[in-house]
Amino acid sequence: MKKLAKHMQHIQPFRVMALLAEAKKLEAEGRTIVHMEVGEPDFITPEPVIESGIQSLKQGKTHYTPASGDPALRAAISQYYQDQFNVKVEDDRILITPGASGALQLALSVLVNPGDQVMMADPGYPCNRNFVYLLSGKVNAVNVSADTGFQITTELLKQNWTKATKVLLLASPSNPTGTLINKDEMKSILDFVAQQNGIVIVDEIYQGLTYGDAGFSALEMSENIFVINSFSKYFGMTGWRVGWIVAPEDYVSDIDKLAQNLYLAAPTPSQEAALAAFKPETLVILEQRRKAYQQRRDYLIPELKALGFVIEIVPQGAFYIYADCSALTSDSFQFCHDVLHKAGVAITPGLDFGSNQPERYVRFAYTTNMEKLHEAVSRLKTYIEDVK
Amino acid sequence: MKKLAKHMQHIQPFRVMALLAEAKKLEAEGRTIVHMEVGEPDFITPEPVIESGIQSLKQGKTHYTPASGDPALRAAISQYYQDQFNVKVEDDRILITPGASGALQLALSVLVNPGDQVMMADPGYPCNRNFVYLLSGKVNAVNVSADTGFQITTELLKQNWTKATKVLLLASPSNPTGTLINKDEMKSILDFVAQQNGIVIVDEIYQGLTYGDAGFSALEMSENIFVINSFSKYFGMTGWRVGWIVAPEDYVSDIDKLAQNLYLAAPTPSQEAALAAFKPETLVILEQRRKAYQQRRDYLIPELKALGFVIEIVPQGAFYIYADCSALTSDSFQFCHDVLHKAGVAITPGLDFGSNQPERYVRFAYTTNMEKLHEAVSRLKTYIEDVK
Repeated sequence: MKKLAKHMQHIQPFRVMALLAEAKKLEAEGRTIVHMEVGEPDFITPEPVIESGIQSLKQGKTHYTPASGDPALRAAISQYYQDQFNVKVEDDRILITPGASGALQLALSVLVNPGDQVMMADPGYPCNRNFVYLLSGKVNAVNVSADTGFQITTELLKQNWTKATKVLLLASPSNPTGTLINKDEMKSILDFVAQQNGIVIVDEIYQGLTYGDAGFSALEMSENIFVINSFSKYFGMTGWRVGWIVAPEDYVSDIDKLAQNLYLAAPTPSQEAALAAFKPETLVILEQRRKAYQQRRDYLIPELKALGFVIEIVPQGAFYIYADCSALTSDSFQFCHDVLHKAGVAITPGLDFGSNQPERYVRFAYTTNMEKLHEAVSRLKTYIEDVK
Repeated sequence: MKKLAKHMQHIQPFRVMALLAEAKKLEAEGRTIVHMEVGEPDFITPEPVIESGIQSLKQGKTHYTPASGDPALRAAISQYYQDQFNVKVEDDRILITPGASGALQLALSVLVNPGDQVMMADPGYPCNRNFVYLLSGKVNAVNVSADTGFQITTELLKQNWTKATKVLLLASPSNPTGTLINKDEMKSILDFVAQQNGIVIVDEIYQGLTYGDAGFSALEMSENIFVINSFSKYFGMTGWRVGWIVAPEDYVSDIDKLAQNLYLAAPTPSQEAALAAFKPETLVILEQRRKAYQQRRDYLIPELKALGFVIEIVPQGAFYIYADCSALTSDSFQFCHDVLHKAGVAITPGLDFGSNQPERYVRFAYTTNMEKLHEAVSRLKTYIEDVK
């Protein structure tokens, strides 16, 4: 009786959602769970940003903005690119979106025909694939490993590019691996794809959350790429659903047209709040938080290694560690289930990120405080020793 | 060099956006414009709703909700259906979406394969068509006229249903015509589509904004339909981007899965604010506003008729009048342009709503106050007399 569209078969639910539901059940039964599965900062939104949202509501700013977003916010983002990366990005190439999800959907929807291939790394963020399936496009998944920092390189690109490949989707820092693409590699990749007459979308959602490396924007190297970004992660605004897209000049009117149809406009209170995201007092808070993430990462990596996880490459960004658990289990999904039930620690199985040896990996998110991370390590230690 | 997806050709920008840009230019030059083109209440969000949003922000509620929405808001909507329409809609069939746009996209994305036909009335809300194009689906546009209250009837349905038609999309009240489908007709339509093994999506976005008729929900008649609704119009929450979808029980997990991928969750501050939308003190304000809209409609209809517009059917809902301007012009698009520039009144051309005699119609939105409506009528009168 159900008449689902065929593309729905390809769209997998996030496995972690089922684990999260189990975790909530355990919590309702009185158990405590350490949550290391959630790709969301534990910090609430910085106070100046919340205050900006409250002030706009007190002023009754509750109507739609233009589909392209509040002009003042577009200008503020342009200024941010200037200040942070010394790159000029004209306001009118920046469109405000309902989260990075909205930005990703716009970029892919404007480009992908049924049958067109979109190349992306496996493991990768699962929604990337699913947006492509929704457009009846095809995913050209490139298996990446620690050898290339879990990133597509020019070499891998050359090996895997086909005539049907239209778009390359990169993410730096990457979810789930936390790894970056370096500047020279990025330049070389952009050059190759331009030669092939292809298009690059760069996901810079975790921009700002890098440790040791100052980071850069791919916009420094090209005006002919799509860049996706968000106030969710570095700026700590997940629940507000506000992000942005930077598009090549000659796609802007198409993106705008599509935005009018897909979502009308990003939420006004969220855009008003985000105006305070670049304020000096906010940036001070964000820098403190970045250091807290770095401290967590630096604590976790040796501890996890001591427990038997193999961390082949030190993640330089985001708030994730993609750990090889093959010394501990042959089935990371079952392992996540067991660790949740027996140790009370929630982590995400590799299965959520693709089909490249997912049974061998789990993702730890360090989106919880040091005290809880200590507790998690202690619980994992007990569990692993018990199983031996 | 541009490599747009083919479906982008089918997606038209809203003509009214270009007019709006012209209007803003005129305003910047010092002209006053009466805005009757905007499908957005002039009222700001009711104060108890704003206050609920502010309180949630003060409490630091800035994280994601589940993809399906805040359970308390889902329960509140269920209760609203019970109170208003005496119909039981289980909480778990109600999912919170980023505006009705998100709801419409979910419903269509879960159902439509490339080539599948979606039947809808012409004239109709333009985004409806465009979502179908994005999925490489086909639009089975049924020309409707004043004879059937600008709505698809069982008779029209029988004449136009084909083997490739999978989905029927209805809207009551309708945008741009403000007309309703009556209860008997709705029942008969749902029965016919069920016999054809098709699926019905009912857009109830303007629910609550009806004049004279108490209104009903199609959910009173069937559990096997998709219903789309929003806090934007009746509840006056446009900029917040929060709506909902009611799905048949066996589609709920698919809708939820898609929501996780498409947008993660509706904005949290907006959901928190919406919790106050059903409070008695809010409903009192909303009822006052409904009466204000009714007063505006009742003022405008005879005035517009006196000016030479033909209003074949009195709209019973929403805040639109779809007027036949063929006695005044043979080209409604040019007419809108002229009226904007020469009379300083912004209205929407039929072209934005389809290809069924669009040159013959314009849409008036009575989303501005009585004083401005008087001014608009006076300006139109002068303009029309001058042209004669």
